Order: sequence, then C-alpha cells, then structure tokens
Amino acid sequence: MKAVVYRGARRLDVTEVDALPPGPGEVRIAVAYTGICGTDLHIFHGDMDARVGAAAVLGHEMSGRIAEVGDGVTAFAVGQPVTVMPTRTCGRCVACRRGHSHICHAMRFLGIDSPGAMQASWTVPAELVLPLPDGLPLRHAALIEPVAVAVHDVRRSGIAGGERVVVVGGGPVGVLIATVATRRGAEVLLVEPDPFRRAVAAEAGIDAVDPTTTDVVALVDDRTAGAGADVAFEVSGAAGGVETAVAVLTTRGRLVMVAIHPQPRAVNLHRFFWRELELLGARLYERDDMAEAVRLVASGAVAPERLISRVEPVEAVDAAFTALERGGGVMKVLIDWQEPTR
Amino acid sequence: MKAVVYRGARRLDVTEVDALPPGPGEVRIAVAYTGICGTDLHIFHGDMDARVGAAAVLGHEMSGRIAEVGDGVTAFAVGQPVTVMPTRTCGRCVACRRGHSHICHAMRFLGIDSPGAMQASWTVPAELVLPLPDGLPLRHAALIEPVAVAVHDVRRSGIAGGERVVVVGGGPVGVLIATVATRRGAEVLLVEPDPFRRAVAAEAGIDAVDPTTTDVVALVDDRTAGAGADVAFEVSGAAGGVETAVAVLTTRGRLVMVAIHPQPRAVNLHRFFWRELELLGARLYERDDMAEAVRLVASGAVAPERLISRVEPVEAVDAAFTALERGGGVMKVLIDWQEPTR
Ligand SMILES: [Zn+2]
Ligand SMILES: [Zn+2]
Repeated sequence: MKAVVYRGARRLDVTEVDALPPGPGEVRIAVAYTGICGTDLHIFHGDMDARVGAAAVLGHEMSGRIAEVGDGVTAFAVGQPVTVMPTRTCGRCVACRRGHSHICHAMRFLGIDSPGAMQASWTVPAELVLPLPDGLPLRHAALIEPVAVAVHDVRRSGIAGGERVVVVGGGPVGVLIATVATRRGAEVLLVEPDPFRRAVAAEAGIDAVDPTTTDVVALVDDRTAGAGADVAFEVSGAAGGVETAVAVLTTRGRLVMVAIHPQPRAVNLHRFFWRELELLGARLYERDDMAEAVRLVASGAVAPERLISRVEPVEAVDAAFTALERGGGVMKVLIDWQEPTR
Repeated sequence: MKAVVYRGARRLDVTEVDALPPGPGEVRIAVAYTGICGTDLHIFHGDMDARVGAAAVLGHEMSGRIAEVGDGVTAFAVGQPVTVMPTRTCGRCVACRRGHSHICHAMRFLGIDSPGAMQASWTVPAELVLPLPDGLPLRHAALIEPVAVAVHDVRRSGIAGGERVVVVGGGPVGVLIATVATRRGAEVLLVEPDPFRRAVAAEAGIDAVDPTTTDVVALVDDRTAGAGADVAFEVSGAAGGVETAVAVLTTRGRLVMVAIHPQPRAVNLHRFFWRELELLGARLYERDDMAEAVRLVASGAVAPERLISRVEPVEAVDAAFTALERGGGVMKVLIDWQEPTR
C-alpha cells in the first residue's frame, strides 16, 4: 500500500509500505480521505523537524472504514465508517489531572509524534476512533477534526444566542467558527482580506468583509449602535488581526485566541483593563467536541463541501502542499486514498 | 474651611472656601482623612488636564462623619461615620444596561469629573455614601476604596481556596490583593523589587520576593511541582511584569490585569493559546465590593495600618505628593482634616 513519507524540508516521498496489522485494542482503518492542515504545512517547511523526526508519516484529518480489528475490540466492525481523534493524553500531568487532558502537557499527537493518516491504511488505538453515521459522505467526514476545533473555540467563547461576533481570519477554521457560531444563534461578521476566501464564506451564507477596504471597527460600531462585539475570534495569526479583535469588543467582551502567534504581539492591555475584556486561549478539542462535530456535519448544520477546494490522488501530494503554501484560491485540499471504482 | 485646589501641573493651592450646603438627597461630610492615590498623582503631573479642568478638587479615598443632611435623606444622621463610593454611573450606556455599571462608559468620577474629597467638608449624593460600623478607626476607613479595588480584582479572578497566586507589584493595591487573596484561602507570592514595599508586605505576613535577584518562574515551578500558578495579578504596570505574570501560569491559569499600561505591551499570545490561559481586565469595584471592603477592614481581616506610611496636615499636601512621586519608602499617604483635639 502507499504512504507519504516526510524526508526533510519540502521532501515528501510516496512509497510502498506494508499495512500494519492491528495489535490488541487497535483497529486498522482503510483511509478514504486525508486533509492537509496548517500544521502539516509547518512540518513540510521543516519547522518541526526536532519533533517529527525522520521518515514521519503526516496527517491527522481523515475519514475511512474499519478494515481490521485487533484482539479485544468489540466496538467496531469491518466496513464501518469512522474518523479519528488524533490526540493521545498522558493522564498524569497537571492538565490531565485537572480535567483539561485535551491540552495535556505530554500530548502525543498522531501524525506528528507517531505515524499519521497520509497512508492508505492506518492502524490506531480503538479508543481514539469515532463511528460515523451511515450516509455521511466520507469527503465531508475528513473535515470533522477542523470542525471539532471550531466547536471547541465557540464553546470556549460561551456564545449565547443573539450575540454579535467578529471572526478575524477566513481560512478553513475561521469559516468553520463563523458557521458554528451562526448555528448557535450569533450574528457573525467575518474579516478576511483574500477575495477567494471571502467568496467561499459568502457562499456559506457568512457576511465577510475586506479589512483593507473596510474600517472594521467603525462597521461593528455602526451595526451595534456603538456597543461593540460580544465575542471576537483571532484566527488570522497576524499582528493587525489581534489589534482588530481587541478594538471591536464591547465591555466585558471575550477574545478567543485561536491562531498561533510565534512572536509576542503588541496588545492594548489598557483596553482590557478599561472595558474589563477577557482573552481566552483555545487549543484543539475534547472528545465531546469531536462528537458534536460529527453531529453537525451529519445533520448538514455544517456543510464542509464548500471548503474542499481540491481532491487529489496521492501521486499529486507535492502539488497539493505547494498549492496550499501559495495560498491563493484554495481552502482545504484532500488526498483521496480510495481505489478507483470504475 | 480649607480645600486643596489643583491649579495645573504640580500646582496645588490650599485655600479657604465655603462649605457647600447639601441639596435634596445629598449629605455634607466632615472629612477626617483623604488618601492620595496613583490617579491623583497622574492629575498632579498634568496628565489629565483635559478631563479634570481648572480649579479642581482632587481626592476620592476618604473617611469622615456626616455633618449635615439634605432634604429627603433619612438613611444617615449627623455624626455617623461614613465613606463614599466615588463613582456615578449613567444607567443608559451598554455597560450599565448589561449590569456592568461599575465601568459605565459615561462614568463621572468624584475627585476627577466633579469636586473630590481633598477638602474639610465634602457634599455628595447620599446614594454614594456607605455607613461605617462604630469602632472602625477613620484612619483605616480612608483605605476602604483601595480595599474595594482589591476585593473586585480577587472576585474577578474567581480564586478558590488552596489555589496558588502570584501578585506582580507590591504597591498598596498589590499588597491589598495579596491580603484579600490570602483571606480567600489562596497561597500567595508577591513580586516586588522595592525593599521597603517588600518589608511592608512581609510585616503583613505576605511572602514577598525580589524579581531582580530571584528567578520567579523557577521559584513558582518549584513550589508547584512544575504545575505553575493558578492566578496571577499584574499590578506593576511594567512590561516585565506582564511577562512574569504570563510565564508563571499553569494550564487554564487566569491573569487579572489590574495595572494601567498606557502603551501596548508585547504579550506571549502563543502561551495563551498553548495553555488555554485567560486574561481578565479588572477595573474599579461594584457596590458589593465596597460593602465587602468595609466588612474586611472592620473585622480586621484586612489591616490597612501597615500601608499608611504618613499622615500629614493639609498644609503639607505638596510634600505628601512629592514623597509619593519619589516612591521610595512610602506606600499610602493620608491628609488629616480633623481639628486638633488638644
Ligand atoms: Zn497529560
Ligand atoms: Zn453607563
């Protein structure tokens, strides 16, 4: 079977490997689709070599069907559609002991710290597998992991119906946050400079504006009669995104920090003091967030189809990474591992 | 009677003025003590001239006795010891409408936006007056307002018993936060470079360390078996204070932003993301915080005597401001308005 092996910065090899039989408590999944995310791109750039090691198999957004079950696994049957929660927690660190195991200090992340889903067949602990309802297209199911990120971020914000929300950054996670927040009854404004991404958001019914031509703070003031937004999500990773997210908030407004900011950012702490704002870091998801993501996608409340810009065979994996890297005109790219059925 | 009138940057005149008779719903208070706080110093420096106007009477930390009651005031009697909550709210702005009137957008602050307590006799709306229990020394009662700040900050942090707390900055508010947090059952470490302030804190039973000679993050790690602090209060107003307050926190730790940072500060947002930290702005106090501050001081749970570095007659008001400005060897300075009883 085929696998994509990371050989070092910008070098992905498609190679033939043997499928790994499932050990006790494990299942082997015939992978249908694997999504490529920002973390995979970071690894591709060589930025995480110290962590991923040589000959790593990337990938942690996926869908597939159970191909084989190991000893003692009774919860799954061959042929069953599934996805995987790619986080293994230690159970002993301070985060785990205090009920925040989803951000375990000793987290082992599948696709980073152990082999990932960019292979035709993936063997994982059954406890990390989530069953999918019949009829949920496996293309869509490959986006359940980023939907779970959005569910977690929105839950962390404590959004209530009718609240005014600004999402800064319209990549896949930004659009998914905007969608989930809308489903929770919020009135959402998405801020994104890229016209393609704004168009994708608009197709999904999201009100998206260009911060290079729109005074976002003035627009929010106008729409909220001067009050400001209740919640902002910073998903852009840009210094200007942080500024905007702080500036739009009303008294006691909540800013959820979703994006990765490798450098310290200048933050208007006086505004936090003056308006008693709140900043809430949000990372990954809990099992409940994954289960909720399955329900949202299965019910159609979140429709990921619009986010899928391209579906490529594994042979085109280099082109897929390069397209994502360039960024224009692309949201989510999936690798299709299925045998052609024609 | 005497009053201190602000005439412009660094110019305070002690002048004779007539006492203002209380109108309907007002009381006139014979002021006993007025404290000088950081905001008063800002005004003294001329930094708030646009707001305070000419011929302003400063001061909002005080204690005294009812000297006269206006028409319709039944809650107070002449001779009764009192303090004042110096914030008047609009009742109409978004903060007021949403139950956060303590940070009203149209706040009129007594001693900034209207005449303050640096006069022998102060006439204020009765609704802003809090009765004091008999036996509570009026010297101590002059610190109830900053104690209310500390009560509000600690309440905002949601501290639970047994939690580990780091207070960065050991001025009067920092020491009061440390004291109130200790009373709530927290284990508190105070971080303060000034040896005099550390000594005052130590006398109050607070564990205080010098960040110029102690690696605070390593110390907190050591004391918490690597977990980090549950709560940090940034009370220093310094860039390094923000860094320390972020660095000491455990997963889901809360950072309460108490200090005024006039410039944006470099903040390690990645740490907020990674550990799902929370930043909570905290400003002023609600009426419940003032009432709790009265109880804490009256019961001796908070003993402000150690914070009172000097008590000066009104004639020495210039020297009092100058001493505070220099900063060394001084915490709180009170002006004594009482007639000598000898
Ligand atoms: Zn753990
Ligand atoms: Zn108001």
